[in-house]
Amino acid sequence: MKKLRDIDLPEKMNALVLEKLDGNPKVREVQVPEPKNGEVLVKIDSSPINPSDYSFIRGLYSTKKSLPVIPGFEASGRVVATGNDFMSKRLLGKSVACFAPTDGNGTWAEYMVTKNRMVIPLKKGIDLEQGSMLMVNPLSVMAMLDIAKKGRHKAIANTAAASALGQMLNRLCIDNNLPIVNIVRREEQVKLLKDQGAKYVISSSSPDFGKSMKTIFEEIKVGLAFDAIAGQMTFDLVEALPPGGEVMVYGGLSEQPSSAHPGKLIFEKKKVTGFWVSEWITHQSMVKLLFTFNKIQKYFSEKHKTTIQKRVSLTETMDGITQYLSNMTAGKVLVKPGII
Amino acid sequence: MKKLRDIDLPEKMNALVLEKLDGNPKVREVQVPEPKNGEVLVKIDSSPINPSDYSFIRGLYSTKKSLPVIPGFEASGRVVATGNDFMSKRLLGKSVACFAPTDGNGTWAEYMVTKNRMVIPLKKGIDLEQGSMLMVNPLSVMAMLDIAKKGRHKAIANTAAASALGQMLNRLCIDNNLPIVNIVRREEQVKLLKDQGAKYVISSSSPDFGKSMKTIFEEIKVGLAFDAIAGQMTFDLVEALPPGGEVMVYGGLSEQPSSAHPGKLIFEKKKVTGFWVSEWITHQSMVKLLFTFNKIQKYFSEKHKTTIQKRVSLTETMDGITQYLSNMTAGKVLVKPGII
Repeated sequence: MKKLRDIDLPEKMNALVLEKLDGNPKVREVQVPEPKNGEVLVKIDSSPINPSDYSFIRGLYSTKKSLPVIPGFEASGRVVATGNDFMSKRLLGKSVACFAPTDGNGTWAEYMVTKNRMVIPLKKGIDLEQGSMLMVNPLSVMAMLDIAKKGRHKAIANTAAASALGQMLNRLCIDNNLPIVNIVRREEQVKLLKDQGAKYVISSSSPDFGKSMKTIFEEIKVGLAFDAIAGQMTFDLVEALPPGGEVMVYGGLSEQPSSAHPGKLIFEKKKVTGFWVSEWITHQSMVKLLFTFNKIQKYFSEKHKTTIQKRVSLTETMDGITQYLSNMTAGKVLVKPGII
Repeated sequence: MKKLRDIDLPEKMNALVLEKLDGNPKVREVQVPEPKNGEVLVKIDSSPINPSDYSFIRGLYSTKKSLPVIPGFEASGRVVATGNDFMSKRLLGKSVACFAPTDGNGTWAEYMVTKNRMVIPLKKGIDLEQGSMLMVNPLSVMAMLDIAKKGRHKAIANTAAASALGQMLNRLCIDNNLPIVNIVRREEQVKLLKDQGAKYVISSSSPDFGKSMKTIFEEIKVGLAFDAIAGQMTFDLVEALPPGGEVMVYGGLSEQPSSAHPGKLIFEKKKVTGFWVSEWITHQSMVKLLFTFNKIQKYFSEKHKTTIQKRVSLTETMDGITQYLSNMTAGKVLVKPGII
């Protein structure tokens, strides 16, 4: 192991540890892990709470790691120790954005070991808080834009559109001249998105929701809808899309099964599929991914910053999750393991 | 118009006429229609009751013809008059299988006018009753086999597998060495299919249905499931399929929306799509379709006859629908407009 000279690594650290899939991780004192070859040790600065974290701690996420485990999927921090291989040593001392390893402890701890290829050095001028949110959401919206372009769609739609991801996707579509219908759940979120330049925003709480959605979809030729809500929302999207239309489900905020009228599937060739950024990544070339990450760093942390509504310590994380879920529109909640 | 010499065409005929989409067509006396160029007049011998007919008369089918209209999608009969064009005149006097025109009156009448390309002369030795069922079901199962082969699937599954279509698909798969899991709704239907050579039959009414379905799907690598039921069945199929699996809905016998767990769509790349034989046809070449119809005539009416459970007159048709829907396993119900 190679260490930074200016840092004394402690033996123990605080971490949130999930012992059962009960949605209730507890703060524990555990060993600071050691990086092997191909790995780096990151001193975590910030880690955003994502909807996928809330799914994961209750056992509802696809990745079922062996327990006990530290949750948290993405973060930023400084590489303070590495394995002895060339690639890892090059990262020593760097400020990075990082993903948790797919099969081990995550980001809600003072330190995390991960593979060197799950880590990207941050460009100059990008602070660690904005840098902590560069993986999941920005990569997701870049992938969504890519899918829409590959499918030659004239326009797209997105649900839960007032979320951090929704706001990013709206801006990215505007900047790329791809018309997008933003579907929000509360009337007051309409203004938020219109203020950010959105041309089409409809609220699912308005009485003529289904009808106005169908009208707009026909008018601007929406052939693809991304859906973070599932349940009845998937049903409504399938109804509103023109023949051949596709709903790509990427979240299940309603906690209900996605549904669809069989007649629309059979006679109108509509379909319900899924979107997962981790799966999308596996089909992209290394060159395309590097190019995309470069673009992300430029685009999202220089041009369009993400709003942060709250910073919480490890002990406050569960309250942070509750606050975030009750009002995702207000911005991201960051876990800061360094705060006592 | 050119007529057969040996037949006196009446001016009036009996027909079942649907005046509202209320599921309740009534017997009426109407004009016998006249074929124009490109059309033929068929004296209907037999017309099977299909689930799509039951959907159509209640306004639940995709094709919403203008009212009043005569229902019925497929039939057999004799061409007794034609338009004056060469193609139509060649069909005069022939025994044929026929589809109703997409935009006009259907088969539940003594006579029907349809386009000459919706008509296929029956081969020698095929009787008019078997010949009346050669369009919808046999073409559907041929299309399903084609889709399974094109997708390089190692095995498939089908629901409502004890229906006429289900039994056909089972036999076709056996003869083509494609393993098929037949999913039936009642325990007693298991024997029916096993007696027809089926290797895998499971009943959705058995207590460990979901588990045993998953086990078989994994064992023989089922990647594609055809679903005639929708509702919870679609959900169960999506659960049981391996990652990447696809459910193609082709019917809605449960009269419930198809549903699916969002996590299976997102993280396991499963999808829910639709299958409609009329849509499939539009993507096939004329040569392939002719080849397929030839194969169908050989395969289904010589080798594997369809069981007929009842023959009904026009006045008895509604009772026939009720009987058919309550026990599709017992065989097809044929409407015979010639019976008084």
